[in-house]
Amino acid sequence: MSLLGIDLGGTKLAVTRFSIHGTVIDKQRLSLDGRVGKAVGALIANCLSSAINPSSDDPVSGIGISVPGINRTKTGTVWAPNIAGWDDYPLLHEMQSASNGVPVTIDSDRACSILGEIWQGKAAGCTNAIFLTVGTGIGAGIMSDGKILEGSNGISGAIGWMALNQPYADDYTNFGCFEYVASGDGIARTARALLQRPEGYRGKLTEIPVEQISSHHVFQAFEQDDPLAAEVFQICIRYWGMAVANLVSIFNPEKIIFGGGVFGPAVRFIPAIKQEALKWAQPISMQQVSLEPSALGPDAAVYGAAYKALQKISSTRNG
Amino acid sequence: MSLLGIDLGGTKLAVTRFSIHGTVIDKQRLSLDGRVGKAVGALIANCLSSAINPSSDDPVSGIGISVPGINRTKTGTVWAPNIAGWDDYPLLHEMQSASNGVPVTIDSDRACSILGEIWQGKAAGCTNAIFLTVGTGIGAGIMSDGKILEGSNGISGAIGWMALNQPYADDYTNFGCFEYVASGDGIARTARALLQRPEGYRGKLTEIPVEQISSHHVFQAFEQDDPLAAEVFQICIRYWGMAVANLVSIFNPEKIIFGGGVFGPAVRFIPAIKQEALKWAQPISMQQVSLEPSALGPDAAVYGAAYKALQKISSTRNG
Repeated sequence: MSLLGIDLGGTKLAVTRFSIHGTVIDKQRLSLDGRVGKAVGALIANCLSSAINPSSDDPVSGIGISVPGINRTKTGTVWAPNIAGWDDYPLLHEMQSASNGVPVTIDSDRACSILGEIWQGKAAGCTNAIFLTVGTGIGAGIMSDGKILEGSNGISGAIGWMALNQPYADDYTNFGCFEYVASGDGIARTARALLQRPEGYRGKLTEIPVEQISSHHVFQAFEQDDPLAAEVFQICIRYWGMAVANLVSIFNPEKIIFGGGVFGPAVRFIPAIKQEALKWAQPISMQQVSLEPSALGPDAAVYGAAYKALQKISSTRNG
Repeated sequence: MSLLGIDLGGTKLAVTRFSIHGTVIDKQRLSLDGRVGKAVGALIANCLSSAINPSSDDPVSGIGISVPGINRTKTGTVWAPNIAGWDDYPLLHEMQSASNGVPVTIDSDRACSILGEIWQGKAAGCTNAIFLTVGTGIGAGIMSDGKILEGSNGISGAIGWMALNQPYADDYTNFGCFEYVASGDGIARTARALLQRPEGYRGKLTEIPVEQISSHHVFQAFEQDDPLAAEVFQICIRYWGMAVANLVSIFNPEKIIFGGGVFGPAVRFIPAIKQEALKWAQPISMQQVSLEPSALGPDAAVYGAAYKALQKISSTRNG
């Protein structure tokens, strides 16, 4: 008996088979190669069909899929803003047709990431824990009192929209205040904004055409003691710390786990983020929370997808 | 069969007997008359004993108590910062001793307020709804996916600590940023801060000694078109709107319900608060949420305490 975890990203597909104890049996990673709409569904169905082998010693008993967007449990459809044609895509129905009777379950990447850490990572044994993803965008997978938050339409955890500074700026309209400043793209935006100042900065970041600056360049410059990069991260640490403080005051969690492409290299800032959060948060809750880097890194969602499949099998057997 | 709801405040005790359908049978309101520590426990026990009359046609079958602070379910103790000696008070044990076998349940005023609105108010039929209390302090009772949030130590919903503006000010240390500016006491603090300015304001609020200004005075001045009072509420509307936006982005709720002493007179600002929140929040979630004044006002917590008692009886019978 094994579990199939599938993590769909904006440009790639990670497919991992696990034992029910969380050991990786085999894994592959496929590029979407520019596929959109139904072609993405067909690729996943194809992966899934070839992974299910009923004559195997160790057949797949459950399939979990993580999607980069919103899972609508009421309709079985998903919204994935980075995949053209996936505004309301009937993924559950398509995958059930392809799965030869093996149960399929779907959830958002936010929910799957915290589930992965609960199963095989830093949130094991927790009943209140939050996975804070900072990549191109910002989101959170939230477990409160043992349950993953969904919200009335599956959009809970959209913390990139957190309001953290005044006054409102029109720049926030398409991103949210927190994501505009402190996501991966936000790090680059913040650097570009600081480069607009008239002061005489002559550092590393002037060597790159301003519109091409990415968070990667800002991290590189920071490692070479660049003062502008240091200033960018001072700003981001303030936003990350305030966001952590707000999650701590609202949820009173045991752990906040940092993941996504930015954490990654920004894990070095976790102590500074904690210092910032200590100023703002409910003080008793803040003393009780632990801030930690993800144990599973970019694999958190694929682990969580498989764990969700395991939960579905278990609840079907017990219920 | 009836239910007893008890709402303990910092200075008074509200005791209401309900039918299981939520009709008020009788109610009383007692002052704590300066009682502290065990004397408060004795007063509640006394109320409870006299309300339980097994020979009545309509005996009390369940008792719920709302406390102004934190309920520690693991130990059966409560923390109520406004009642001296109630740092870790064994309320559950004491009330069980006094209740002659009638089951007793306890929860925080935040949790009880949203439960009251779910039972007999604006949140009826909702699975995702938030009760935002703005009184002397600020807090929230949060129902997410049908469950009231507790947090790892019962301190969830401490949203008075929400970080909403930069930079950090030492003034926030004992209150939190949001509560410092926009609670009932915050309204008075904000007015006093604006009165410090050198500009030539000559309005109503100069007639009151500055240290005696309360939110009541600021509301009175606002009704007389006082420009400084208008400015205070512009600031508060910005904070209330940003806090609402953050709750909407995090929880994707169906409703946010405004209560506490300030809402009250501030319900007139709900449309302006919605306009502010619309700028900041996750846009799909914001379109789906309704902002409403409490249906039960200051009685929300006593209703919720009784509903909690009803839930306990029902779960005991079914389980």
